[in-house]
Amino acid sequence: MSENVVPITGKQTASVIDELQALVAEDMKHVNATILERMQSHVALIPQLAGHLIASGGKRLRPMLTLASARLIGYEGSRQNKLAACVEFIHTATLLHDDVVDESKMRRGQETANEIWGNQASVLVGDFLFSRSFELMVEDGSLKVLKILSAASSIIAEGEVLQLSVAGDVSTSEETYLKVIESKTAALFAAACEIAGVVAEQGEDVEAALRDYGRYLGIAFQLADDALDYSAKQATLGKKIGDDFREGKLTLPVMLAFRRGDDTEKAFWRRTMEDHDQTEEDLTQALAYLTKHDTLADTLNRARHYGSMAKDALAIFPDSKAKTIMCGIVDFCIDRAY
Amino acid sequence: MSENVVPITGKQTASVIDELQALVAEDMKHVNATILERMQSHVALIPQLAGHLIASGGKRLRPMLTLASARLIGYEGSRQNKLAACVEFIHTATLLHDDVVDESKMRRGQETANEIWGNQASVLVGDFLFSRSFELMVEDGSLKVLKILSAASSIIAEGEVLQLSVAGDVSTSEETYLKVIESKTAALFAAACEIAGVVAEQGEDVEAALRDYGRYLGIAFQLADDALDYSAKQATLGKKIGDDFREGKLTLPVMLAFRRGDDTEKAFWRRTMEDHDQTEEDLTQALAYLTKHDTLADTLNRARHYGSMAKDALAIFPDSKAKTIMCGIVDFCIDRAY
Repeated sequence: MSENVVPITGKQTASVIDELQALVAEDMKHVNATILERMQSHVALIPQLAGHLIASGGKRLRPMLTLASARLIGYEGSRQNKLAACVEFIHTATLLHDDVVDESKMRRGQETANEIWGNQASVLVGDFLFSRSFELMVEDGSLKVLKILSAASSIIAEGEVLQLSVAGDVSTSEETYLKVIESKTAALFAAACEIAGVVAEQGEDVEAALRDYGRYLGIAFQLADDALDYSAKQATLGKKIGDDFREGKLTLPVMLAFRRGDDTEKAFWRRTMEDHDQTEEDLTQALAYLTKHDTLADTLNRARHYGSMAKDALAIFPDSKAKTIMCGIVDFCIDRAY
Repeated sequence: MSENVVPITGKQTASVIDELQALVAEDMKHVNATILERMQSHVALIPQLAGHLIASGGKRLRPMLTLASARLIGYEGSRQNKLAACVEFIHTATLLHDDVVDESKMRRGQETANEIWGNQASVLVGDFLFSRSFELMVEDGSLKVLKILSAASSIIAEGEVLQLSVAGDVSTSEETYLKVIESKTAALFAAACEIAGVVAEQGEDVEAALRDYGRYLGIAFQLADDALDYSAKQATLGKKIGDDFREGKLTLPVMLAFRRGDDTEKAFWRRTMEDHDQTEEDLTQALAYLTKHDTLADTLNRARHYGSMAKDALAIFPDSKAKTIMCGIVDFCIDRAY
């Protein structure tokens, strides 16, 4: 497995992710070694398929958050490494299943596993990684960590089902959208940070602060991600603009444009997003409506609100390099959508 | 949730399953209550979809094995109830994913969840039940139980991927077939029995004996199941003969017929099972080849071999009603294929 990490370009924010990577570089070697070792199986297709995704240049943001959190609170042990691998396995399992559910053909600039090996293999290898993650947690031996990560896993699945349930309704409320992203994205960010507090045994306040940081960061991250999909910035990251639109995936920029739009616009969103009746020109029209109502900027404003809360959650910790970086990561997650 | 249990007709074996149900009836009420309570979610589609399968008249054989094992060793507590629900949740999650993987349209005489709600919902609700199962285990609090069931879950997924990997090769060895059914079926039977020994804290020998019983029973069960699919008995259970054939699902009766067949027969199996090129008449021809080489009877002979080992694994326990029933269940699992 190569240690590809997505090169992220743009403003000063690029240096923050570099700093984060430098902060956790030693630990991350152990995490990567654990990931590589524990995705093995006598069934060759498993490491083949899992490795395709795991080595494909994800940012490893979630395990890095576990490692940075451990560093922030001065934890001297090494348990965070195995647990960070658990977090990445859970994330990878959900990506494999997500790509099946969304019928995605591309991820991180290459073909998805379901596109290469089929839906069946993706579902089953996702199950394997998920089970393997729990085996790793059991080896660590903390029932509290097991509780946090099993609860997060249930919540992720609930969020995904909720997203599916509302997929055909462009008038879905912002409240429901928030519930979806809190569940499908923020729950794992929160758990990834909180478990570092658990292994450090520094009490409920520390665990709660880390959990809140992760949760708010996760919400901000997903809001920015959903704005990014429609942003010109997307092209500079080597991705196509408007994938969510083409897939009929309902996100806040569209939900706000629908609410603010007139009858003609509402009919446009209903046709394109609910009936999946789209032509090539519709994306241009969609972008024009988003611009007209400023919904990308407003989605990012919402993200900033949660980002601010994420940074404030860290207030109980003394100033440190780790704290500065973790605050910088919040801005990075939001600013990448510019 | 109704407490439908599949009525099983035929010979004296029917009474054994009645006896098993009577033996564990009190505990099973708690198990069913836990299942019903813990499959709930604020996302309505989850209990709707999960309930469709859970209430659809499965035999609840795996949780009954946990309960019967607890009874066999005289365990007086109540932890087996929650853990039996965990076992049923894992089983249900794998069924949901299996039906997606196999593109099955019918199960237990009614439409599959994927047929009604789509593959996406089935994948995600499976993930939910799987996570929920681990949450329940964490509530029980035994790391040993968590280890056994997380390992079993990994092995099940490995077995399913292995089955997928060999699906297109009718010359697959019996050894590989055994590996598949040991993983995808016997691992959960083994774990279901073993965890009763763990909560009773009666030592490694008791745990090993229960694990071996479950494992051998699971292998015998799957062998008989694979024979049953081609057996006239199938019709008396309200199922169609030859589903495995139509789905191109490779099982021992066909693998033995391929090995024992001449070039014409080998070409027949390659065309129908590997190339999925079938006509209506091919099933009749397939059954004729199975009969010619006696492969259903021989598959059941293999099942009897493992069934015998299952019964012998219980030799360390004194005679009791529970022991008699658990031995009878072995014969029941095999004889239902006559």
